Formats: sequence, C-alpha cells, structure tokens
Amino acid sequence: MALEVESLEKVLDSVSCEDHRSEAYRILFGKQLDKIDFNLSAQDFAKLVDVELQGHAFNAATEELRPPRIVRIGAFQNRIVKETTEPVAVQKDALFERIGKACDLAGKCGVNILCLQEAWTMPFAFCTRERLPWTEFAEDAEDGASTRMLKDYALKYNMVIVSPILERDEKDVIWNTAVVISNKGKVLGKHRKNHIPRVGDFNESTYYMEGNTGHPVFETEFGKIAVNICYGRHHPLNWMMFGLNGAEIVFNPSATVGALSEPLWPIEARNAAIANSYFAVGINRVGTETFPNEFTSGDGKKAHKSFGHFYGSSYVAAPDGSRTPGLSRMKDGLLVCEMDLNLNRQTKDKWCFQMTGRYEMYGKKLSAAAAFGYKPEIVKDE
Amino acid sequence: MALEVESLEKVLDSVSCEDHRSEAYRILFGKQLDKIDFNLSAQDFAKLVDVELQGHAFNAATEELRPPRIVRIGAFQNRIVKETTEPVAVQKDALFERIGKACDLAGKCGVNILCLQEAWTMPFAFCTRERLPWTEFAEDAEDGASTRMLKDYALKYNMVIVSPILERDEKDVIWNTAVVISNKGKVLGKHRKNHIPRVGDFNESTYYMEGNTGHPVFETEFGKIAVNICYGRHHPLNWMMFGLNGAEIVFNPSATVGALSEPLWPIEARNAAIANSYFAVGINRVGTETFPNEFTSGDGKKAHKSFGHFYGSSYVAAPDGSRTPGLSRMKDGLLVCEMDLNLNRQTKDKWCFQMTGRYEMYGKKLSAAAAFGYKPEIVKDE
Repeated sequence: MALEVESLEKVLDSVSCEDHRSEAYRILFGKQLDKIDFNLSAQDFAKLVDVELQGHAFNAATEELRPPRIVRIGAFQNRIVKETTEPVAVQKDALFERIGKACDLAGKCGVNILCLQEAWTMPFAFCTRERLPWTEFAEDAEDGASTRMLKDYALKYNMVIVSPILERDEKDVIWNTAVVISNKGKVLGKHRKNHIPRVGDFNESTYYMEGNTGHPVFETEFGKIAVNICYGRHHPLNWMMFGLNGAEIVFNPSATVGALSEPLWPIEARNAAIANSYFAVGINRVGTETFPNEFTSGDGKKAHKSFGHFYGSSYVAAPDGSRTPGLSRMKDGLLVCEMDLNLNRQTKDKWCFQMTGRYEMYGKKLSAAAAFGYKPEIVKDE
Repeated sequence: MALEVESLEKVLDSVSCEDHRSEAYRILFGKQLDKIDFNLSAQDFAKLVDVELQGHAFNAATEELRPPRIVRIGAFQNRIVKETTEPVAVQKDALFERIGKACDLAGKCGVNILCLQEAWTMPFAFCTRERLPWTEFAEDAEDGASTRMLKDYALKYNMVIVSPILERDEKDVIWNTAVVISNKGKVLGKHRKNHIPRVGDFNESTYYMEGNTGHPVFETEFGKIAVNICYGRHHPLNWMMFGLNGAEIVFNPSATVGALSEPLWPIEARNAAIANSYFAVGINRVGTETFPNEFTSGDGKKAHKSFGHFYGSSYVAAPDGSRTPGLSRMKDGLLVCEMDLNLNRQTKDKWCFQMTGRYEMYGKKLSAAAAFGYKPEIVKDE
C-alpha cells in the first residue's frame, strides 16, 4: 500500500526556515487567515466523536453603508461506518448516527450552514455497476428518511443543511441530488447534479442522468447558496451559472480518489471562487471502500474490490484567491469557516471580472460552437 | 523590502523527509515529469547570457494508429534591461538584443514554438496613465521593428514565435496584441487581448480596448496554438473558446505582480488546461520597474514610482492536471517543455468533459443571463 501523508499542510509545516515556510503558505494559499477558537464543549465533543475540527475566518473591509454579513459554514467529510457487506439498513443506520453527531458538532460550533459530502447516506458503489442492493439507498428527496432526520437537526440548531443523497423520484428515475433544508426545518428545494461522469470507476452514467433542475440559488436567511455536485466542478460553465444567478457560497460535495484527481482538487473549486467572486467549498469523503463483488476499472488491470483512497482534503476558497488549509487526507473532519460575504462584492469591484466578462459575445459564440456544422476560427499556415 | 524567495520549489526541496517531499510534489504538481537534457552548447550559452534554463517532458500513451506528436515549446520570461528613464530607442534596442539572445538560446534548445512575455518590447508602464513616451513603444503588428526582427529568427531556427507587443494600427487605435510568426518567417496572424483590466495599477483600459479578433487558433506546422493574453486568464470563457476552436497549446503571456495575483497564478492557467484538455503556458515577467514620475494606485497610499515585483514563475500545465515546476521568481529564464500532443485527445477520451459539457444549454443560458431584464433562478425562503 502506498504511503498516505496526513496532509500537504503537515509537509509544509516541516520546512524549518520560518520565513520560507510562511512564503510557501502565502504563494500557495494567499493571505493568512484568522483562526476560530471553539468553546471547550465543542472541542471535547469533537474529540469524543473522533472528528478533526478546524476553524478559519475570512475578513472583509469595513464599509460605511453596509454592515458586515458574517456567516459561519461547516463542511463535513467522513468515511462510511460499516462494511459494504452489511445489510443496507445497518449501513444506513450507522451513517445516520454518524451524521447526527456531525450535526451536533456543527451546532456546538455555531455553524449557520452545514454541507455534507456527496451521497452521504451510502458507500460510493457506482463502480460496481450492480443495481441491488445499492439502488436501495435511494430516497425521496422531500420526504425520505435522511431529509426527515435532517429537518429535525436544522430546526434544533437553527442551521441550513445541504444534504446530498441518491434520489428516487415518483417515476422511479434516479438522480444525484442535493436537498437544501432551511433553518426552519423545511425543504427549501433541491438541485440535481448537472454533469455526470463516465470516468474510470465512476460509472455514474449507469445510474442517473444529467440533472433537470438548472442552476438554482437558494436564498437562505444566512446568504445565497448553490450546490455544484462533484463532477460539475470540472465544468467552468456550471460554476459560472450559479454565479450569474447570484450565489454567494457554492458547495461542491464530492467523492473522488487520489490516483484519479488529487492534483486537480486544489485547483478547480478555487479557480471557481476566483473567476466568479464567491466562496467555494470543496468537500470530499475519506477512506477506502471495499465492495462484496469484484469489478474491473477499464484500465486493463485485474478485477478487484476497491478503487482507491478517498483523500478528504476539504477546503474553502475565497473570491480574493485565498483559501483555508485542507482537512486531513485520512480522517473524518469538520471544517468551520466564517466569512464576511461583503468580500464578494468588494472583490468584484476590485477585479471587475463581471464587468469585463463580455457574456453577450460568449452566449452567441457558445451557441454557435455547440451547433452541428460549426466552423472553428482556424488560421491555416498556407 | 519584503523577502523574495527564489521559488516555491526551492522551499519544497528543503523538506528533509524524502517521502514527504515527493508526496507534496505529487499533490501539488501531479505525476513526475522527465527532465530534458540539453547539449553543452545550449547550457553554456544559457550561463553566458545569464538565463535560467529548465527542461521538462510530458509523455502520452502509445497509440496504434497515430504516431506521437512531439512538440517542444519555449516560454521566455525576462526583466527590462535599461532603466525607464533612458530614451525610448535605448530601452527598445536593449530589449531587442536581449530577446535576440532568447531566440538564439531557444534555437540551440531545439524549440519549435517560442512565446515571449506580454508587451515584451517595453516596460509595463500602464500604471502611469501617461501617454508619451510610452505609446511610442507601440508598433505595427505586421511590419513593425519587432516583427521584422523576429521573422528573421523564426526562419533561422525554423521556429514559430509568438510575439506579444503593443500594437498601433493604421487608424492609430492601440491594441494589446500577440503576433504569431510562422517558422517560415511569415506573419501567420495576430490576436488582440479580449479582456482588459482596470485593476489597481493596471490602468490598461486607459490605453486600449477589448480585442476584436475573436478566438483564433493558429494551425502551425507543430500544432494548433492560441494566445490568451494576461488578464484573459481570469475569464474561463476566453480559455474555453480557444479550446472549442481546436487549440492544443494556449499561451498566456502576462505581466503581473506578487501582491496582486501571486496566489491566483498557479490556479488559473492550470485550471484552463484541465477544463479544456489542452496545454496551457503561463509566462510572467520578472523584476521591479521604476518609473520617472510618481503615480498613485487607487489604494489611499502615497504616490510612488514602482508598483511591486513581477514574480516570474512561468510554468506549463498539461490536460491531465500535471504541471512543470515554475521558473524562478527573480531571474530571466527559458522554460523548455516537450509534450506529446496526443495527450490532449487521450485526456478528452478519459474525462469526457467535452462530451458532458452541455454547451447548447449554456449558450442559451448565458445569452439569457447577459440580456437586460434577466431574472436569476432564485429560490426564496418564504
């Protein structure tokens, strides 16, 4: 088994020259962030439930006419709890219990908006291409067991919860869906994953189709949020439409493994935060999941029962190019991040990406390029 | 004066645990690249002209029906040579001589396509908002002195040269333009910067307007190339249109300083390479430029004569998420990179971003969002 380092940050911290270390952090992560101190009850509870707890704050300049708009978000990453060979109900119950603890911890940390990882109610079984038992994890978005449970937590902690699940609708169509539950304990709406991978082991197009819910932005009491689910992070236009619809924070609940995507991970959500002048929150599960039956990976190699290590490393990126350190590559963790949403408009005013974006031109050009028979702008050397 | 570290890579190299160091490189830069060895004549010449020389190679899988398509590109970063208080002709002559040496070095290194930095013929004087003497650096794109010089070098070394200059056209409109000179010594065409910054000291909208040349891809003997000039790198749609027009390598000649953009620099061109499945080449000048008259920066601070350190750090990013180390933050440098362009299509086939892009939907949505009276997709909490 390959070496798994705890995190990139742990490696950087071993640089002995302090000036060099801080310059490396500046080049990699941008301006230094304030740490959030949690009360002892939160700290003790995190230890008790064995969850890494990090807290960081992004500040904005003081304005005369607008008060600060401070919101505290939480991103939770976790392993599955039970083996995939256990009965479905046992696996689900264990995950529900774990996520209940995550909600309790987030509540103790004063989180206003909590986002869970993609398909948090289940192992990421789409590699298998098997239907049963995995499709049994699918639920009704509005009234399934996970939504019912999280409504209670939302109300209890006055906390918006973004809950990415496998959705089965009334026509038995399966979707990869994020349910947005308001702090009043109501389903505010849902978003279905817009872009579906057919990459390596991620045989997700076998299970569900491209989402039909557009690019909704949910105007919660704490800010305007949107959800770009997993593979959608590779598509700059997906990020952009959430921005054009007014999103202030875009969550990217994901499930992705090291050999496939790790060098892409710090790039894409952060680029989206920069390009669209909003906060982007990347959340990835942790652990290695082993399945009952062997499967192949379309890479010429022997059949096997697991496809690698989910590397966690959840982080928050800000519109000004700065970002938090990542959570661990190995452990369950809650990343709490406090941000002044005024930073979004301040960054827009500074960089003017929206003013200089020439969207009208691109709307036309993109439509032309997508049409059959498009002739690319090529200059030949003749 | 603030500490300037030589490069992020130098800091990483000081990590004492070899396993940790190599994991940090993997997480940050992706798969390890082969080094290119240069002949002694090239190495000696680089030393003689005091230019850092790096060479890296990106490989691709062997295919049965397509031979490898190996191309060697060069990215040159440099300081200005003379003080900005010298006569214009003296400044230009010195830069022309320096770039002549860069062409000689690239020729000795077997470079097929060389790209210079943005507005290489001049100091980056747009901070001043003064017209004379700076607009005197503008030239005719097709027949100016820099184009004439580089045509000779292109022919001499059988090398395509991308030459970003300040262009003055026949109507005395000034543009920020990249001239593409073929390896036969002819002007293949030009591209005018599509997005113009009005950011901090970069008062460029004072000098030139948004480009009117679209998103041309130049089909050279060595591959299809395009040029995304400087601030265009913040615009994912600009990168995307070059990709949709078939670009295999997109150069991003730039001029940007540390305090403004350094944490963004490793993100944007690399994200473009990933999202569009092509090679992206970021080139940034080095050094601090001090101007004759003081100017203000719109930040409430006192007037001053320079606006910070151009941090170099030029690099090449590949479609698979890997990238080269950066050139120095301090010194003139030539980054030579050999790539098998077959990697582009192989990466497209693996990730399917083009297949899953839903461009037709986005063409419509973007046009709608750009129109006056657009109603964003907002879900209110009522």
